[in-house]
Amino acid sequence: MLAEIKCPKDIQTYSIEELEELASEIRQRIINVLSVNGGHLASNLGIVELTIALHHVFDTPKDKFIFDVSHQTYAHKLLTGRNKDFEGIRKYRGLCGFSDPQESIYDHFYAGHAGTALSLGLGCAKNRDCFKRNEFVVPIIGDATLTCGMALEALNNLPHDLKRFIVVLNDNAMSISNNVGAITNILGRIIGSPLINKLRAENGEKNYLPHDDRCLQTKTVSAVEGLGNASAFFKQYGLNYIGPIDGHDMKKLIQKLTALKKESGPCLIHVVTTKGKGMPEAMFNPTTHHGAKPFNPESGKFLPNPTAKATFPKVFGKHIFEMAQNDENIIAVTPAMAHGSSLDAFKDTFPSRCIDVGIAEAHSVTYCGGMAKESGLKVVASIYATFLQRAFDNLFHDVCLQQTPVVFAIDRAGLSAADGSTHHGIYDIAFLKVMPNMVICQPRDGRVLKELMNVAFDWKKPTAIRYPNMITEGDEIPVMKRGLGKGEVLVRGEGLLIIGLGHMNHEAMQVHHMLNERGIESTVFDPIFIKPLDEEKLHELLNNHAMIVTLEEHSLQGGLGNTINQFLMQNNRGDVQILNKGIPDIYLQQGTRKDLLKEVGLLPDQIVEEIIENFSLKSKQCATQ
Amino acid sequence: MLAEIKCPKDIQTYSIEELEELASEIRQRIINVLSVNGGHLASNLGIVELTIALHHVFDTPKDKFIFDVSHQTYAHKLLTGRNKDFEGIRKYRGLCGFSDPQESIYDHFYAGHAGTALSLGLGCAKNRDCFKRNEFVVPIIGDATLTCGMALEALNNLPHDLKRFIVVLNDNAMSISNNVGAITNILGRIIGSPLINKLRAENGEKNYLPHDDRCLQTKTVSAVEGLGNASAFFKQYGLNYIGPIDGHDMKKLIQKLTALKKESGPCLIHVVTTKGKGMPEAMFNPTTHHGAKPFNPESGKFLPNPTAKATFPKVFGKHIFEMAQNDENIIAVTPAMAHGSSLDAFKDTFPSRCIDVGIAEAHSVTYCGGMAKESGLKVVASIYATFLQRAFDNLFHDVCLQQTPVVFAIDRAGLSAADGSTHHGIYDIAFLKVMPNMVICQPRDGRVLKELMNVAFDWKKPTAIRYPNMITEGDEIPVMKRGLGKGEVLVRGEGLLIIGLGHMNHEAMQVHHMLNERGIESTVFDPIFIKPLDEEKLHELLNNHAMIVTLEEHSLQGGLGNTINQFLMQNNRGDVQILNKGIPDIYLQQGTRKDLLKEVGLLPDQIVEEIIENFSLKSKQCATQ
Repeated sequence: MLAEIKCPKDIQTYSIEELEELASEIRQRIINVLSVNGGHLASNLGIVELTIALHHVFDTPKDKFIFDVSHQTYAHKLLTGRNKDFEGIRKYRGLCGFSDPQESIYDHFYAGHAGTALSLGLGCAKNRDCFKRNEFVVPIIGDATLTCGMALEALNNLPHDLKRFIVVLNDNAMSISNNVGAITNILGRIIGSPLINKLRAENGEKNYLPHDDRCLQTKTVSAVEGLGNASAFFKQYGLNYIGPIDGHDMKKLIQKLTALKKESGPCLIHVVTTKGKGMPEAMFNPTTHHGAKPFNPESGKFLPNPTAKATFPKVFGKHIFEMAQNDENIIAVTPAMAHGSSLDAFKDTFPSRCIDVGIAEAHSVTYCGGMAKESGLKVVASIYATFLQRAFDNLFHDVCLQQTPVVFAIDRAGLSAADGSTHHGIYDIAFLKVMPNMVICQPRDGRVLKELMNVAFDWKKPTAIRYPNMITEGDEIPVMKRGLGKGEVLVRGEGLLIIGLGHMNHEAMQVHHMLNERGIESTVFDPIFIKPLDEEKLHELLNNHAMIVTLEEHSLQGGLGNTINQFLMQNNRGDVQILNKGIPDIYLQQGTRKDLLKEVGLLPDQIVEEIIENFSLKSKQCATQ
Repeated sequence: MLAEIKCPKDIQTYSIEELEELASEIRQRIINVLSVNGGHLASNLGIVELTIALHHVFDTPKDKFIFDVSHQTYAHKLLTGRNKDFEGIRKYRGLCGFSDPQESIYDHFYAGHAGTALSLGLGCAKNRDCFKRNEFVVPIIGDATLTCGMALEALNNLPHDLKRFIVVLNDNAMSISNNVGAITNILGRIIGSPLINKLRAENGEKNYLPHDDRCLQTKTVSAVEGLGNASAFFKQYGLNYIGPIDGHDMKKLIQKLTALKKESGPCLIHVVTTKGKGMPEAMFNPTTHHGAKPFNPESGKFLPNPTAKATFPKVFGKHIFEMAQNDENIIAVTPAMAHGSSLDAFKDTFPSRCIDVGIAEAHSVTYCGGMAKESGLKVVASIYATFLQRAFDNLFHDVCLQQTPVVFAIDRAGLSAADGSTHHGIYDIAFLKVMPNMVICQPRDGRVLKELMNVAFDWKKPTAIRYPNMITEGDEIPVMKRGLGKGEVLVRGEGLLIIGLGHMNHEAMQVHHMLNERGIESTVFDPIFIKPLDEEKLHELLNNHAMIVTLEEHSLQGGLGNTINQFLMQNNRGDVQILNKGIPDIYLQQGTRKDLLKEVGLLPDQIVEEIIENFSLKSKQCATQ
């Protein structure tokens, strides 16, 4: 059936039964491909019927579906001509794991970060109305979207007379982890309220129960007066509320969505779905099956990974937990990323000291600034590099300006590989280093990560420790007390100086050895700190190195290389030759880390060739022989 | 009376009559000093009684007042030992116009940007509860705070069992301009609702009327069902709502605030104040009297300014208005800064094409991204450089990644002078230049600004045009069509190359002339574009210039100088000598622009001296003679 669908119009004549059969076919296709590729499994299984119903009712691409985050667009991709390419999803040069306008005219925006769909939708609707077009604009948001401040800013700006603007709230009661906050509880109350269930009973429908734990999982507002009225929350923003609707009831979905097309003002349909629907293992473990590793398509169990080693996030999670066991003043804050950042154990053991604020990056950083201002607490803000971009001003205004010693554990720093252009953590050094008082460092392995964590609070300064989601050593014991701004020479040579940032020192050492084999000496220097830079050591190294290579997995526009260039020019040492290797000024798509490094010439053998050519070392070596 | 108050404890024994007398004394003091210094007049006049009542009821600094934005803290400063220094407010080395922990133990945080007080307050309360202290945490927010997404993120994270957390909502129905959005309308309904007025009548109080235009000023939700219940909005977030209270009724304020100290959970008191209270001219023109210029203390009329010339923002405002008159597809968006950005005429004439979204920077940028994605509209996002910091990720994710040709008119780029460290617009180049597809330019005067505006939409790329709030020429007619990435040599010499950024070319030319007088030649080059850089012209100039000076009013960590350094090192031209002059890596306080330039050595005579010393030009010149 799926193979025959060329475009979504094809399904508009299908019967409910056919659509339901299509749903199960799509679900199986997703399970089969993701069991090999990995990917956003649970959310995509949850939204199958809803996606089919939407395409049955609306005329895309004229009508615009704007998926928030857009990790849940697999069914949409399968219905919009991308079934044949689906095996390549999240692979190099394959389909993107998010919506991607280069891939399809049915995708209007790149997305990847949460909370943007309402603002984009309002913009699209304004454009439409300026030119008196008549398409529908349909932002498809999750319940977690409503923890994002900017989504609430958009709601606050909703014109009450906006037509053909239909918000679809896909409520699975989760972000990646369980959702938090007052709005979640309001949604939970709506679904589980006696009134709603009474009405449903009168219509012969079965009761909605609040999602497991939905109302119990946080310490926020548990009993609120006057909000038995299910639609009050959205009505206050001028959205006419319809729901809740069972998101797996195809007939009901189509009925309601069709009726909504006649609404005269902006409206919201509250669709309740189950993450992982159709695969028990994912339904019962939606957090681990959010961004799933390869699994057995029958059982849903993850495939055993015999080479599984510690990663930087796991080393962080384990070490911060051990530190917290020994020091009750350590507190961690995460914006909805407890699982990815390996804070699960900390959160389970010390729930009041590991705080998930929901997808609310700006608040999370300022909240940390408030907590750490008065002395006593040691506050760790755990956040992905790409999401820290949402808290630039909070870092500047509420932490650095105040000289508050919050420690930022910046996870996923570097290329994001399979997630692609929206998720690369390759800009944070550039924006962090303009902030006075900020310390920026990056450990090359798990041992140094632990060493930096051990001393970061001693510095009494806002400190960013950035690291990638990559395998590293895990069990090594910290051996030294790291000094603020102190780098480390890993191996000594002469003539050529290789400066590697963090995990790129692994590549730096490989390059060193490969050059050695060709009779070319080099020194490898790990600065560890981007700010403050170890200027003393650099001056010393400049005494016998006139060629420098910088290696980093960060944008060349403002990372290690840029910092070294600035140091050289300002110290009148621009007479050396330099080769800056890092991420060029382009948007890189998804792929394995190796695919992407290769694309930008960052694999060790590529670096070696470029060094030899750039510094004319080959001829020099020949001359010497 | 004021002169005798050493600390706020002193007023705790005052009678209501004495407090009222104190209020009028404070009000007069503010009017007198601001009539000379300028400053945030209207909001400070509005909050006098409330500030006095707060200090009468609470024990600061143990209890913590956290003023949002904190431009409204003048009465607080006068009551906390700073009366004697008040003449120096907003002056160099004088009192800061915002709260400032270096100034007083009664100020807990630097502030200046809106919407942070709730998150900071939640952090303070968490710290307090970890150590079982018992102080009150009192965030003092404005109604405009509630248009900020991060404030709503904080509300969403409010623990329902949080004790001694009293939010004071100082509702004057305005941000700088009239407020916008659904929440504003909800507050308006609360105040003007028949129920509230009935209750007030029973208590012998006079009716509250909705603020003028409060419910009429926007096109958002005008009639909402089910929200006659005044406290529903805050209750849904777990805040017990008390109010509205007349913010100029000292007795009532003290009574209610005292009662609130016994509340068992978090609560919010809704205080209605009048901006400009006590000075009719300011009451009736609160927008112009928000950040007031010097005025006649008797009449409130602004002093005539015989030297008033056009400023960059005024040139922008006039030119965009003229462009909009000729092209109905031009649309501007501002996050609550229509007046400061000189968009008043545009907004008044074409209200549907000049959209104020409230203090919602993140939404504003993504909204523009949505509007401009489909072709047709020419969308200008008008935003202050310092507030653009709140939209980094929106720029990245919703504009640059999509290659959407939004034009950003970045106002207040450069030193903010009297507003100080929170407001300097000196980081934007650093964070903009890491974004692929971004064009960054800065005109040196009003004519070039108009020239850039005329062609920016032709480039079909996200484009940032940044300019300061400084006097420039206004009436000159654009004379040329600017090419993307094309710089301009302003004057030719040899040996020394001065590269100035935007308005700093004024200083560059002065330096050129002063050097000339000493017999030293120089070339002045205005790159106009930071990205893409005019590399061709730079290569040409490097042929006969071996000494380079870069001049910019931007952080040296990532602006013009950093860009030129990078260019030189990557092109193997680091053999030249360079002197980077700009803002060093520190937080600069307030002062006149001249004060601040002097502090960092950016006045022309300082630059001349440094050039001569740095390049040993004096001796060279002597040698030549």
